[in-house]
Amino acid sequence: MKASDQKTADGILFTDQYELTMAQLYYRQGIHETPVQFDHFFRSYPDYGGHKAGYCINAGLEWLLDWMRDAHFRDEDISYLRSQRGSTGRSVFDEDFLRWLKNNGSFETISLHAISEGRVVHPNVPVTVVRGSLAMAQILESSLLNHLNYQTLIATKAARIRETCEGQLFMEFGMRRAQGKGANAGARAALIGGADFTSNVGISHVLGFPPKGTHAHSMVQVFLARGMSELDAFRSYAEVYPDDCLLLVDTINTLESGIPHAITVFEELKKKGHKPKGIRLDSGDLAYLSIQAAKMLDEAGFPDTSITLSNELDELTLWQIITQIADEATRYGVDPEKLIKRSAYGVGTKLITSAGDSALSGIYKLVSVWADGKWLPTIKISQTLEKTPTPGNKQVWRIYDERNNATADLLCLDDENPHEVEELSLFHPSDMTRSRVLKRENLKGLEPLLVEVLRDGKLIYELPSIQQIRDQRDQDISRLEAGIRRLLNPHIYHVSLSRRLAELKRELIKRFDQNGGQNILHGKSERRKSQPGG
Amino acid sequence: MKASDQKTADGILFTDQYELTMAQLYYRQGIHETPVQFDHFFRSYPDYGGHKAGYCINAGLEWLLDWMRDAHFRDEDISYLRSQRGSTGRSVFDEDFLRWLKNNGSFETISLHAISEGRVVHPNVPVTVVRGSLAMAQILESSLLNHLNYQTLIATKAARIRETCEGQLFMEFGMRRAQGKGANAGARAALIGGADFTSNVGISHVLGFPPKGTHAHSMVQVFLARGMSELDAFRSYAEVYPDDCLLLVDTINTLESGIPHAITVFEELKKKGHKPKGIRLDSGDLAYLSIQAAKMLDEAGFPDTSITLSNELDELTLWQIITQIADEATRYGVDPEKLIKRSAYGVGTKLITSAGDSALSGIYKLVSVWADGKWLPTIKISQTLEKTPTPGNKQVWRIYDERNNATADLLCLDDENPHEVEELSLFHPSDMTRSRVLKRENLKGLEPLLVEVLRDGKLIYELPSIQQIRDQRDQDISRLEAGIRRLLNPHIYHVSLSRRLAELKRELIKRFDQNGGQNILHGKSERRKSQPGG
Repeated sequence: MKASDQKTADGILFTDQYELTMAQLYYRQGIHETPVQFDHFFRSYPDYGGHKAGYCINAGLEWLLDWMRDAHFRDEDISYLRSQRGSTGRSVFDEDFLRWLKNNGSFETISLHAISEGRVVHPNVPVTVVRGSLAMAQILESSLLNHLNYQTLIATKAARIRETCEGQLFMEFGMRRAQGKGANAGARAALIGGADFTSNVGISHVLGFPPKGTHAHSMVQVFLARGMSELDAFRSYAEVYPDDCLLLVDTINTLESGIPHAITVFEELKKKGHKPKGIRLDSGDLAYLSIQAAKMLDEAGFPDTSITLSNELDELTLWQIITQIADEATRYGVDPEKLIKRSAYGVGTKLITSAGDSALSGIYKLVSVWADGKWLPTIKISQTLEKTPTPGNKQVWRIYDERNNATADLLCLDDENPHEVEELSLFHPSDMTRSRVLKRENLKGLEPLLVEVLRDGKLIYELPSIQQIRDQRDQDISRLEAGIRRLLNPHIYHVSLSRRLAELKRELIKRFDQNGGQNILHGKSERRKSQPGG
Repeated sequence: MKASDQKTADGILFTDQYELTMAQLYYRQGIHETPVQFDHFFRSYPDYGGHKAGYCINAGLEWLLDWMRDAHFRDEDISYLRSQRGSTGRSVFDEDFLRWLKNNGSFETISLHAISEGRVVHPNVPVTVVRGSLAMAQILESSLLNHLNYQTLIATKAARIRETCEGQLFMEFGMRRAQGKGANAGARAALIGGADFTSNVGISHVLGFPPKGTHAHSMVQVFLARGMSELDAFRSYAEVYPDDCLLLVDTINTLESGIPHAITVFEELKKKGHKPKGIRLDSGDLAYLSIQAAKMLDEAGFPDTSITLSNELDELTLWQIITQIADEATRYGVDPEKLIKRSAYGVGTKLITSAGDSALSGIYKLVSVWADGKWLPTIKISQTLEKTPTPGNKQVWRIYDERNNATADLLCLDDENPHEVEELSLFHPSDMTRSRVLKRENLKGLEPLLVEVLRDGKLIYELPSIQQIRDQRDQDISRLEAGIRRLLNPHIYHVSLSRRLAELKRELIKRFDQNGGQNILHGKSERRKSQPGG
């Protein structure tokens, strides 16, 4: 795309057409400046097919805020909207509305609360809460979801990979398989969720990380094409990068050529006083080959060199490789624990695309409207109670049990303070006849998760660094039960409603549902509602 | 991301670190300006899990060319590279190399041949061929793959959806679930592959298409929250867009509320001389509901209004819906053909993420090196012959049979001209003992697919418009056998080597493989090569 076009495509027109046609309708109705509140949340954890996440890692907020700050209707944007024609040739957008957009069409009046990046988040909990004029809060929808859905999806996948590879080095390598420049958002989210580094140079620069990577098969191949050998290629590499010599050993044959050649070069480096870095394996049975590589490197006197694995890795494949190493290494005279400790992982395609579930189901729903000097909660009635969002202006409280583990997220109305009560009633969010009671004295803490970020467009939140975001992630994950953290079939984390919120939800369902909530509250679903194959 | 950072992240540093460390090694070796040729191709069709594509639609070239034209090492980029430190604190990149990058680090000397966008393409066929200095051709790799992999992936998915919905209106709705700004590349690719329009406003502007979309559930909800009704919402919409009135009817209850209210509004519009557009269904059993909707609209005298379906659609779900309509509509007194003809489809998440297979396996392999005044073909030996790329400088010829259907792609050396021979020998690309012979007299045509695009960085190719690209797509698809076009279990399209190319490949395998090609040419694979779970 040309640079000038990019400004158009990435600016305020980075939205769906219906946001603009709805905004004009609100303008015609004279309600475009009515304050409203939209909640952003996601409906379910990513399900990778046979395995499902037990928690998500929130990410994307800072880049959304950057976009909101810069996005505005430029003259070119207005001209383009002016040129749009409906089916009879009439302008889609009228001049008065375009004038309003030109003068008022920015996010400078939006207020925003959000759960911070890096925090553990769960379905049906408001992660981002937008208050602003109906027209601009509506126009924001598409871009907000785009910014937050993808980074949260990838931070979540990265967290799962991080859980699997524990403290070992984990690098993001996926640029070439990402959705165009989405590679940059993916790399950032991977760094937030669990990757130590990325191979993506530009985004590393922007975020202040050293990019990682050494060489590809093509380097060895260049030497072969010139009538030279793999050993020549490795020697040249070692000459240029004597203290960062990590060699890809599978271009010809890993065990018969690559590793022996690497060892030769490592010996030469050692003689010159350099410490060789290690090797990378990018094909074959990575568990078996890394055991053999460790054996050969150990025997040659290089027990500290690292063994980096790459090639279509994800959390399950990694888990299997690590398990196989633990089971089999001893048989070959290799200490499995030492081998696992010297391992590093490069994860590409399956991380950057969240293979298995390539989209997060984040949505954006109207929850209250300002009228007659107060907020009126509102509700979108869905086919089932599970899909019916929770109305009103809310705060999310994370409840920590006596062991200081997060035990539930409690959604309250924003004027409720659970600190003030002796007992907390937790209502099931979609079966509001069910509740349980927690005594305050048995709880270690109650933490409000939504923090104020934008007040009338002004940033009043100190944006954390990536490192601070990661620390938050580590802290949050460490306070999850092991069952929630499990890779396969994780235990379900509880998200509950306060009594007042449950009552409000019931009442609004009765008021807004055409059957007075008969069906939805009593589990009778409309006939043939489910979609074939959907 | 901040705008200034975006320039950094999207510019020439939009590459992987190892491309730069290899480039410096080539510089040290004095071979950085050696002309080389890399082939870009993909190894297999997308496999969505249970169903696999039988062809791909090529896309992404124009945006790659735009990126190449603009990308260069700015002073800031050089400063950043200068600041990179290795593990001992020494600079990763030396001043002389940085000076070379600053002065020569652009794609102005790259020559490029490619298969045009919109063309049907197959695995293991060179789609893009890059000739240039070793250093810059290497640095280009990551971004080239990023640009071409994703757009081809999405154009292919869109083509499958287009096959399913035949001539009906098909719109791309996926921005909110894309990888950040990758949404724009995805929308372009969808338009190339088969979508008529996209809801993405900015990219529609850039590409000269009207964006599509009417309203969301939230519009109806705003009216409900204000104590008004769905009918009020529809009336207001009709007032603002009397000639483009397409109403989303499932906010409350499709059959009992949405469609009756839409009909009321359509009647009012009709009285005022307007032609109502139609309705959209976004939940429930879309096949059943569209039959009922058609029945109600027919009975009310609106047989020409359209019925747009959306909600987690992909080619298989669409196929099932259309089949169900064909099977069941008559039972309800609805003509299935008429109903299918009035249907339109909005496809979001599953198109923009290519759900089921979220990445294309495009790769970039060195195939020849300039030495002693001529091109020396080279080869990367892989574990199997299937994965071993075809060496040398090649042309791809598409062979059309007597019915003018594409019957095979034949890879030849670039100095071969299949027009000059009476018989064409087609060798199997990975079992070169197998071949077949086609007589020229039985063929309708032979078409070279690779066209010259860049000569020493200069564009010498007329970039087609999106409409021309689509016409090319239609023409190519129409010349595929029905078996190749099938959604499920498609027939395999033949990609073959010319005799000379097959001989060259055999010879190079013997020369470069450490066992003289013993294993690879005779199908003996190395022990335990396949990866667990991979």
